[in-house]
Amino acid sequence: MKNKKTKPRIVKGFRDSLWEESLARRRMIEKIQEVYEKYGFLPIETPALEYVDVLGKFLPDSDTPEGSIFSFESEDEWIALRYDLTAPLSRLIAQNQDLPKPFRRYQVGKVWRMEKPGPGRFREFTQFDIDTIGSSSMLADCEVCAALVDSLLALGIGKKDFELRINNRKIVNSVLEAAGIELLNADGTSSDVATKVLRSIDKLDRLGINGVFELLTKGRKDASGAFIKGAELPESKANIIISFLESPRGSRSEVLNFLSEFTKKSTEGVTGVEELTEMDSLFRTMGYDEETIVFDPTVVRGMDYYTGPVFEANLTFEFKDEKGQNKDFGSIAGGGRYDDLIERFTGQKVPATGISIGVDRLLSALSFLNKNEKNLGDAPVVVTVMDKDKIGEYIKMTNELRDANIAAEIFLGSGGFNKQMKYADKRGAAIAVIAGSDEFEKDQVTIKDLMLGKELSENIQEREEWLKEQPSQVTVPRSDLLKTVKEIISRYRK
Amino acid sequence: MKNKKTKPRIVKGFRDSLWEESLARRRMIEKIQEVYEKYGFLPIETPALEYVDVLGKFLPDSDTPEGSIFSFESEDEWIALRYDLTAPLSRLIAQNQDLPKPFRRYQVGKVWRMEKPGPGRFREFTQFDIDTIGSSSMLADCEVCAALVDSLLALGIGKKDFELRINNRKIVNSVLEAAGIELLNADGTSSDVATKVLRSIDKLDRLGINGVFELLTKGRKDASGAFIKGAELPESKANIIISFLESPRGSRSEVLNFLSEFTKKSTEGVTGVEELTEMDSLFRTMGYDEETIVFDPTVVRGMDYYTGPVFEANLTFEFKDEKGQNKDFGSIAGGGRYDDLIERFTGQKVPATGISIGVDRLLSALSFLNKNEKNLGDAPVVVTVMDKDKIGEYIKMTNELRDANIAAEIFLGSGGFNKQMKYADKRGAAIAVIAGSDEFEKDQVTIKDLMLGKELSENIQEREEWLKEQPSQVTVPRSDLLKTVKEIISRYRK
Repeated sequence: MKNKKTKPRIVKGFRDSLWEESLARRRMIEKIQEVYEKYGFLPIETPALEYVDVLGKFLPDSDTPEGSIFSFESEDEWIALRYDLTAPLSRLIAQNQDLPKPFRRYQVGKVWRMEKPGPGRFREFTQFDIDTIGSSSMLADCEVCAALVDSLLALGIGKKDFELRINNRKIVNSVLEAAGIELLNADGTSSDVATKVLRSIDKLDRLGINGVFELLTKGRKDASGAFIKGAELPESKANIIISFLESPRGSRSEVLNFLSEFTKKSTEGVTGVEELTEMDSLFRTMGYDEETIVFDPTVVRGMDYYTGPVFEANLTFEFKDEKGQNKDFGSIAGGGRYDDLIERFTGQKVPATGISIGVDRLLSALSFLNKNEKNLGDAPVVVTVMDKDKIGEYIKMTNELRDANIAAEIFLGSGGFNKQMKYADKRGAAIAVIAGSDEFEKDQVTIKDLMLGKELSENIQEREEWLKEQPSQVTVPRSDLLKTVKEIISRYRK
Repeated sequence: MKNKKTKPRIVKGFRDSLWEESLARRRMIEKIQEVYEKYGFLPIETPALEYVDVLGKFLPDSDTPEGSIFSFESEDEWIALRYDLTAPLSRLIAQNQDLPKPFRRYQVGKVWRMEKPGPGRFREFTQFDIDTIGSSSMLADCEVCAALVDSLLALGIGKKDFELRINNRKIVNSVLEAAGIELLNADGTSSDVATKVLRSIDKLDRLGINGVFELLTKGRKDASGAFIKGAELPESKANIIISFLESPRGSRSEVLNFLSEFTKKSTEGVTGVEELTEMDSLFRTMGYDEETIVFDPTVVRGMDYYTGPVFEANLTFEFKDEKGQNKDFGSIAGGGRYDDLIERFTGQKVPATGISIGVDRLLSALSFLNKNEKNLGDAPVVVTVMDKDKIGEYIKMTNELRDANIAAEIFLGSGGFNKQMKYADKRGAAIAVIAGSDEFEKDQVTIKDLMLGKELSENIQEREEWLKEQPSQVTVPRSDLLKTVKEIISRYRK
């Protein structure tokens, strides 16, 4: 074990989360969970690994050389880390045909994609999905949308700061049809050109209308200078798609009017508009106005398997990145109806719809909006050790606090007062408890408010007044330890 | 997509969890979290994948042909799914030397081991770890033990139903030394024979003293008839170890007396006994009696890397399996001090100690003890759809319940009353809300208590009396919907 050193390194494209982020993520997930459970969704868990053929090839970039997934051969079968939670859900549904249906489930879990790592782009991330399986009712689609909207509101995101954009794949298909693009191959699989066109449209937010036109036709150079092949459509066909994407934005009924006119020659298009119209009416009954839920013909989503309504939630505010450039958070959730996916296994259509939150992206956004709950009082109290012989006394103080449900820790390292104070500071502790020979002699204890200094440096003009009322350190009778700690915590707890 | 069907199958050795189990697991984890946070442990997360050399070879069965881990080559490096949470923690500590120390963290996460799958043995399972890094104080060891004991008590496991058994690897090493077994190879790695002996001792609970003797000497046939190679010790050496394992059980101070006599010739043994003696005294100060925390010389734990105190928590009650045979749940948590593990990376000793709960095993035990919290009232209310034209009314009823924090769902499938009742039953719903033309005409709603039938069939003699007071179905004014649902829920909520 000792002869040669191993270099401690994390796998490329992966990262650790320390306590602040982990706590914030957990609190965020708990709030979403609460909303989803109110809607009758219940949790399930599926394994990280699945057989490769069971997962299927639905990932937007699965045409890259690596196949975009972490796969390997094990005991003569190809297995892979799941790249989303929808494929495993479909497998579970197909395997357990006696589940109550419609089946509403939620699942929070890590997924893995072997994408090019970059700043803010990781190969392991968390998704939080809700899906309803076995219902073809548009109300099922509206409910997953409503549950998402309620979750974002519950997290404190303002109505003006996000919107849920909805479209319908049947409408998009009818536009492809109008442009003379074959949707399916002879064997029923999606045609390559249709897939390429959909994925080009999906990049509208990022590339703008000219970028999409390039992708639909001859291809384009990306920011790194690499050439991305186009779908090679003739310009006339590409223009039909572009004119659809340039549809005027407006109220839900204005968009419905536009779409109804645009698709009136296609049976599939008409059905798509009917579905959207029904959703509009249901949303009104449910109380979701045009501010949060909009209809947007440019939404398509990257996955091949959508068959009806598609959803995408976006944060609508901009922020400046480290280089001072305006950026937006983009899509933080997306989904849609996928009535054919389970048929892969069973041969029978099982209608299904759902929405998936990108947990890590949403967490960054909350942290930007300062909406992450962070109770100062939750950081532990550090009970310092001034006299090793009195360890029993320090243990008693610690236990007293813990018994009152206050997170407390006794200093377990070595080193004197300064080192212990430095530790408490690094640790983010709110309070230090100090007892040395003076205190023990007089049966007292000193309690130091560690947040005060920080608070004061932020509001420097109020410093003197504050200090008069709230000294940063008090020495009290030993029997007042708990009472005093509680008082200090209550100052900071929101 | 439609031409050939894929067989829906789960990877061998893996499993899904449906909602009852997932909810129970989450509630269990939340309770443990609460205790651990009170002790000042804070959460971190590390990736599922790590470089193989970073993980190191510490798994008890890593001498099996597959290497016991899921590993594969990716972008010219060997990576693997983590087999525990300790190796990644060591990597994280070595990589982030500026973390506050002593560093207390907890981590809940899946780990993967490529063991032979079997009934109740899975290749993916959840561990819940706490560790304190950077403290050589025995109080750090005592605190992880105390936090574990408090967690088990918080989960409702009775004091008589578990014990935490503690030993010290320094003492075990001194016994191996007395038996003339080399502990280390010339390069400082653990010797093969020492590893074999430790792992043989670790199987005492399962194999009994004769089984261990066989493993220490010539080997033995296991239940399946396969021959397990022994450590090939001469009987005289094996007998020294056996006489140590046959030490009398007794109070902590009795065990300390025995150990002190047994190890008095070894410096390392004497230090081990001193450490145990200090832990005994600290446990007494902290208020942990001999009923829950015992000293047991037969505890060694399977991992190579322990250097001091080792811990193992066992459930002490037996149960009958499906074949009517007495079984015990065995070890549900284990750990110890590993002062040399981080040195692999840094070249410097970083003292560390921790304990890991086997979450799935503990969950089975809780479910056996009937300690899993299960609030009937948490199962959603199903709002049935009797008249599609009144969907707006059903949506309003559902919203009314959800707004009052009651999980409620509108029936999204197709089918009449009977099919909807069957659904509600399968779903485990507590209440069904019914409104047809009769109810709408009179501005009423019918509320059906679905748990009552089940309750009654269990207490059949009280049926009539119960029915008089608590009819299983009531029709009330529409405005009393919420009030009535709340009343029924309060009947069942514990």
